[in-house]
Amino acid sequence: MSIKAAVRKSRGQIPDTISALKAFLGDRLSTSPSILERHGSDLSYHKPAPPDAVAFANSLDEVVRIVKVCAANGTPIVPYGTGTSLEGHVMAAEGGISLDVTQMDRVLQVNGEDMDAVVQPGVTRKALNAHIHDTGLFFPIDPGADASLGGMAATRASGTNAVRYGTMRETVLALQVVTADGNVIRTGGRARKSAAGYDLTRLFVGSEGTLGVITEVTVRLHGIPEKIAAAVCSFDTLAGAVNTVIQTIQSGIPIARIELLDDMQMKCVNDYSKLTYADKDTLFMEFHGTTAGVKEQAELVQGIAAENGGGNFFWTAQTEDRAKLWQARHDVVWSVKAARPGWELFITDVCVPISHLTDVIIATKADIDREGFLAPIVGHVGDGNFHLAVAVDPKDPSYLARVEAMSDRMVERALAAGGTCTGEHGVGLGKTKFLAAEHGPEAVAVMHAVKKALDPHNLMNPGKIFPES
Amino acid sequence: MSIKAAVRKSRGQIPDTISALKAFLGDRLSTSPSILERHGSDLSYHKPAPPDAVAFANSLDEVVRIVKVCAANGTPIVPYGTGTSLEGHVMAAEGGISLDVTQMDRVLQVNGEDMDAVVQPGVTRKALNAHIHDTGLFFPIDPGADASLGGMAATRASGTNAVRYGTMRETVLALQVVTADGNVIRTGGRARKSAAGYDLTRLFVGSEGTLGVITEVTVRLHGIPEKIAAAVCSFDTLAGAVNTVIQTIQSGIPIARIELLDDMQMKCVNDYSKLTYADKDTLFMEFHGTTAGVKEQAELVQGIAAENGGGNFFWTAQTEDRAKLWQARHDVVWSVKAARPGWELFITDVCVPISHLTDVIIATKADIDREGFLAPIVGHVGDGNFHLAVAVDPKDPSYLARVEAMSDRMVERALAAGGTCTGEHGVGLGKTKFLAAEHGPEAVAVMHAVKKALDPHNLMNPGKIFPES
Repeated sequence: MSIKAAVRKSRGQIPDTISALKAFLGDRLSTSPSILERHGSDLSYHKPAPPDAVAFANSLDEVVRIVKVCAANGTPIVPYGTGTSLEGHVMAAEGGISLDVTQMDRVLQVNGEDMDAVVQPGVTRKALNAHIHDTGLFFPIDPGADASLGGMAATRASGTNAVRYGTMRETVLALQVVTADGNVIRTGGRARKSAAGYDLTRLFVGSEGTLGVITEVTVRLHGIPEKIAAAVCSFDTLAGAVNTVIQTIQSGIPIARIELLDDMQMKCVNDYSKLTYADKDTLFMEFHGTTAGVKEQAELVQGIAAENGGGNFFWTAQTEDRAKLWQARHDVVWSVKAARPGWELFITDVCVPISHLTDVIIATKADIDREGFLAPIVGHVGDGNFHLAVAVDPKDPSYLARVEAMSDRMVERALAAGGTCTGEHGVGLGKTKFLAAEHGPEAVAVMHAVKKALDPHNLMNPGKIFPES
Repeated sequence: MSIKAAVRKSRGQIPDTISALKAFLGDRLSTSPSILERHGSDLSYHKPAPPDAVAFANSLDEVVRIVKVCAANGTPIVPYGTGTSLEGHVMAAEGGISLDVTQMDRVLQVNGEDMDAVVQPGVTRKALNAHIHDTGLFFPIDPGADASLGGMAATRASGTNAVRYGTMRETVLALQVVTADGNVIRTGGRARKSAAGYDLTRLFVGSEGTLGVITEVTVRLHGIPEKIAAAVCSFDTLAGAVNTVIQTIQSGIPIARIELLDDMQMKCVNDYSKLTYADKDTLFMEFHGTTAGVKEQAELVQGIAAENGGGNFFWTAQTEDRAKLWQARHDVVWSVKAARPGWELFITDVCVPISHLTDVIIATKADIDREGFLAPIVGHVGDGNFHLAVAVDPKDPSYLARVEAMSDRMVERALAAGGTCTGEHGVGLGKTKFLAAEHGPEAVAVMHAVKKALDPHNLMNPGKIFPES
């Protein structure tokens, strides 16, 4: 967004930090305005907050040295991957060093028999999948953007395949992390399970850079299915679509993707991608398995959909048809942009127990209608997770505040339904105000006690997750 | 075991604690020698260590009051469920109060559409499954014993179904916990996923009572499959059996159980249960799905097994045949006991990346043979996890030490292979010595910093997980 950077004062002895880092990083320590600007902004609606310098590390050893220099000078560190976060995670809210790990982009191990891989944090999900393609394995987590695995671990990313393959919570086997004092730890090994002590892996997954810098990620892989089929089905009512999802999952059908696009979203997608689907609440689905298994799954879901008012159930195992269908799904953000040329997007998400999904979405759509927003809904509906992409008029200074207020009401609805203020985008800057409402002040105090124990001087990505203290 | 209790001095103002607890618990505060003895011993080889008193709580409010009394008097607390731990978790290593939650045994919610349940910590897995049977749902985690869900969460339990349904790590959605200072926290909600702050749920799952007392557990449930089939297949070589598992999982076959019983174990089982299987390395398997899907899965695995030297692949969907087969699997411990009447058992487990499973098992079996132990191997082989049940001569005072030394060598082999010192039994008292070897001293220091932040006076199950400090 073309909004001025937030006013803030950098903490720590910045000039000392910069000269100490320059001494061993040389050109890989940058204070170029364009690089600072890029590293201090993301795809979110948050105000840019550039760091004082960007350090491009290319080894574990360099990360350790950078962290130690920053620790010695009281300088904040903001870990940086692809910058595709949606909640302001990469903003240097209190100045300091943006620690860019994109040059640490090597796949270190692929263990075919164990179905796992060890990668440096700058490896992106597409790069990993390209690297392992010939092994018959794939990495399933797909948050949309071609994010780095370090960033995906840090934000507990998930996406369309999570209903079958889990999120980064289930997919990360182990991490190597540089802690705030510059120690290097391993949070686990390659065994599929362990009962040996506290689950440090899960503590760091989703910690958004506030506890340390991730320098290596060990992930589970899955076998590329023999057959993949996709399906589309539109519904007369939202409840019909959601009930189809509930009954599909209750039946134990191992559906790989099941995505909801609401009527407003379908209209945008049809316009943008020149498609002829009905402008109705629609499920996009994918089935993975054997040839016979995929056919059986698709037919079972077709039967469930028919009982819930689903019409025109179209399914295909043809690669081109599948690609076209998922391209439409992936184009949803662009389709909204195209519907309001020149406008910005406000993107957010919540997640609720699936039994409350229909109610929460219907109430949210009524709120959107009252406000007159263009705000289509897309959901990873098998998980009860849905997103809003709201078009924001950049020329109207009050517009963003109105959108934020509507989004806040949606979060309050999700929390009242026993859900969470964010299913997959993270807390970052945008959801800090809901942390206590969701977890209660005592649980937030426990989180804060952990933060303080591991980062007593609050140097690791300060300002994120926790409300201003 | 009939070994004298370890010598230890109780910490804290025990008489003050007991009189304060008696005031509101009445008869539910017990110092009866038989109750103390039962609460200070488990199924493990560790020396009994009875508490100074046992407090039977029947509500959250009582747990809070007990914790506050103990905190005020510096008295240790040992949470107690069914006492079926295998690593000494329930031993009152430093005296204090055993906090028995078995009277907190109500199923609080069953949410059919969301496929989850909320239970008090004393509900056992079998009680939960009986309670929900008519809903068409089931709780999949089966560690063998009919353990309480509080205890299973505390030890990160898993068992035979983990290869398909995950462990308690994946199955617990949220906990209610009374922390060391007597605060009540919720670690999460019922949403299937969340990116809202640190993963406190996973921090407490597997923390073995050292961070707080679990007072409520929210778990995921699964749909009872339309069809269940079981299969048995014996192999000429261990490698053949393990490679069958590896190829099955790589093929994406969603096998529900795949258990290895080695030749020595099969001999014990055949003798004990009057069966006629071959005395060879054998896989016991289970398939869940539709009628057609189960048949397809079984036939695919049969083909894989045949290519790996598997003979006599027998599969059945008959309920009685299945029950007989799994009864034999569940009888393995008794079959070893029966083979050495009057002897004790030393039970332990490790977990390795599956590519190393054959090597680690073969080296362990050679070690067992050299020592002349009766020590059959049973493994949750889809996860790379296997168990030893070693018969120990209670009349030979040096026998246990020799078994422990052999077990230590097995753990060292597992760690050298990138595995873990325990896949599912926990650290407890028995594996503390391996914590630093497995995780490195810096990672253990991080765990200890978390422990210290949440339990600064080391009152929550002291002596467990961490080596003596």
